[in-house]
Amino acid sequence: MSRQPLLFTPGPLSTSLTVKEAMLKDMGSRDFAFINAVKDIRSGLLRLAHVSKEEGYECVIIQGSGTFGVESVISSVIGEKDKLLVLANGAYGERIAKMAKIHRLNHEVLRFDEDTIVAPEAVEKFLSANKDITHVACIHSETTTGLFNPVEAVGEVCKKYGAVYIVDAMSSFGGVVMDMAALHIDFLVSSSNKCIEGVPGFAFALCKRASLEKAKGQARSLSLDLYDQWAGLEASGQFRFTPPTLSIMAFQQAMQELALEGGVAAREQRYKTNKKILDEGMRRLGFKQYLQPEIQGHIITSFLYPDSPNFRFDEFYRKLNDRGFVIYPGKLSKADAFRIGNIGQIFPDDVKALLEAITEVMKEFEI
Amino acid sequence: MSRQPLLFTPGPLSTSLTVKEAMLKDMGSRDFAFINAVKDIRSGLLRLAHVSKEEGYECVIIQGSGTFGVESVISSVIGEKDKLLVLANGAYGERIAKMAKIHRLNHEVLRFDEDTIVAPEAVEKFLSANKDITHVACIHSETTTGLFNPVEAVGEVCKKYGAVYIVDAMSSFGGVVMDMAALHIDFLVSSSNKCIEGVPGFAFALCKRASLEKAKGQARSLSLDLYDQWAGLEASGQFRFTPPTLSIMAFQQAMQELALEGGVAAREQRYKTNKKILDEGMRRLGFKQYLQPEIQGHIITSFLYPDSPNFRFDEFYRKLNDRGFVIYPGKLSKADAFRIGNIGQIFPDDVKALLEAITEVMKEFEI
Repeated sequence: MSRQPLLFTPGPLSTSLTVKEAMLKDMGSRDFAFINAVKDIRSGLLRLAHVSKEEGYECVIIQGSGTFGVESVISSVIGEKDKLLVLANGAYGERIAKMAKIHRLNHEVLRFDEDTIVAPEAVEKFLSANKDITHVACIHSETTTGLFNPVEAVGEVCKKYGAVYIVDAMSSFGGVVMDMAALHIDFLVSSSNKCIEGVPGFAFALCKRASLEKAKGQARSLSLDLYDQWAGLEASGQFRFTPPTLSIMAFQQAMQELALEGGVAAREQRYKTNKKILDEGMRRLGFKQYLQPEIQGHIITSFLYPDSPNFRFDEFYRKLNDRGFVIYPGKLSKADAFRIGNIGQIFPDDVKALLEAITEVMKEFEI
Repeated sequence: MSRQPLLFTPGPLSTSLTVKEAMLKDMGSRDFAFINAVKDIRSGLLRLAHVSKEEGYECVIIQGSGTFGVESVISSVIGEKDKLLVLANGAYGERIAKMAKIHRLNHEVLRFDEDTIVAPEAVEKFLSANKDITHVACIHSETTTGLFNPVEAVGEVCKKYGAVYIVDAMSSFGGVVMDMAALHIDFLVSSSNKCIEGVPGFAFALCKRASLEKAKGQARSLSLDLYDQWAGLEASGQFRFTPPTLSIMAFQQAMQELALEGGVAAREQRYKTNKKILDEGMRRLGFKQYLQPEIQGHIITSFLYPDSPNFRFDEFYRKLNDRGFVIYPGKLSKADAFRIGNIGQIFPDDVKALLEAITEVMKEFEI
């Protein structure tokens, strides 16, 4: 097989060959090896969040993409008499707001500019003025821009006001050290094809059991019923509906490889090194970042289009793709940008190779 | 790698090594090869149902299990003023009834005994007495028992009364020649890990465009919005939310292998041969089938537990599993049975090998 293209995207990501090879064996959904893998993964994911079943936390795996996992939580845990506050400063916050609207949940949206973080003091002001808010949802790494919202400070506010705290840590979990209990998080959602470096196929929600139990009987759909999905997994170790068996086998392997790398702290360090090399190289090439550095996370970066009529993004993308480097279009509402991710099986030498390819392409563009 | 276990189940199934090997290459969700695979699959699936885009049909791929696909249709296409009739004679019909209840759809359930087929004349009587029914949902191959419902005769009734016809052909599509237009089907749902012999990860709905277009804006969830999912695929060839990229690459390969086998008719013949060998062998061993042969399909068969105190299903299952043969527990509400499937990469010699293993195990049981 020829060299695989390197994915500098927010996911699906580059994964190790051994992760993909874990999918070469057929696996029945009641197979003992499969049931063990599910068990392993569920307890292992809690450990990565520094919590455990014994401490009152549960892991629920949900078939589908990350959005399915977020919707499973949003549409299951907010009751008829509850009220959700959605904190939004990008497309993923807006997506939660859209879910709240579709499911006709009582909810409010507190919006912040795309290039600023969620301000904890504004959240506090809102909660103090709106005592009927029972749940707060916040995005950790807003993939729209690449910023990190202050989930810790928002968690403190939630704790103070007794609000159930939902964090969409889709693109950051496994690539940022997070202690779910210390952050006062009740529900944390991520997916198989992000920083754990598995292949796509499912999402997972890490849940404070006491908060999860309140979701019984109030889900708005069958497939995305978080409580029933959990109850099914607890009762038999099996899924209510056909699981993505091979994606799960690949994920078990990915978790073993994460441990071998040294765990989340070591992976975070690798991603940060990738980011540092990328930042320096792109600056040398004259690219400007959309965000101020103090709010920029190390998962993905938005680079503004160069101020030159010679730059055409589609061609830039294609020329890099032809060289084996896949980048990502922008998603900003107010500026033209593209994005480059630092996550997945991407190492400092890969980032250097990408920078060389970008240098070549910019020369071809005569910029 | 040692010999793979053979899965005689309703899915996930045994698949070819080449199908699984199609997952060994990382694939971005905007990759040209990926977008081409999606396009290929969408038009290819319509061809398998003897329809095409030109004739007014569309294929929508939905992340998750088959149930996610069924729920996407059920929760998207039945409007506030519509009324659904669910035809139920097993767990999968009941599952649709449950979805209708959760989504608070106007609906009725017409039930038949688990060991009898849906009676078209009863459906006709019901529709003639209940003119407010706008949609009818029917399971083709009821995996609970293994029977085939008369989807053609029910389709005639739907046509006569102008009802939109939804068929859950989860475990049969690709293993039974079906002409969607001739059967008057508006929505046909199946999944990646059934008779097309791909790996799990997604469902698909084949839709009459005129019926699909009416679903605009009326879905009850974001993730399972059938219309928006279709509109997204049409607009860019891409998914709204992260697709199971590698399951899709495997499925493209599976569809090529289906064509090489001679298409659906040839595959149906292989499955029927498997079934014939299984039936004869099991009869020789003294096993009785739950269903009368005239309503039994060739996808999966329910065998009653032998009338002997020596038979313990858990041990039977484990002993076969140890020999590399995975069978499936029963799901009947009124009788103890286990199930054996004929679908997937299972050939006559594999069925003979399974029968030999069963013979050995029965000897160990002294039955």
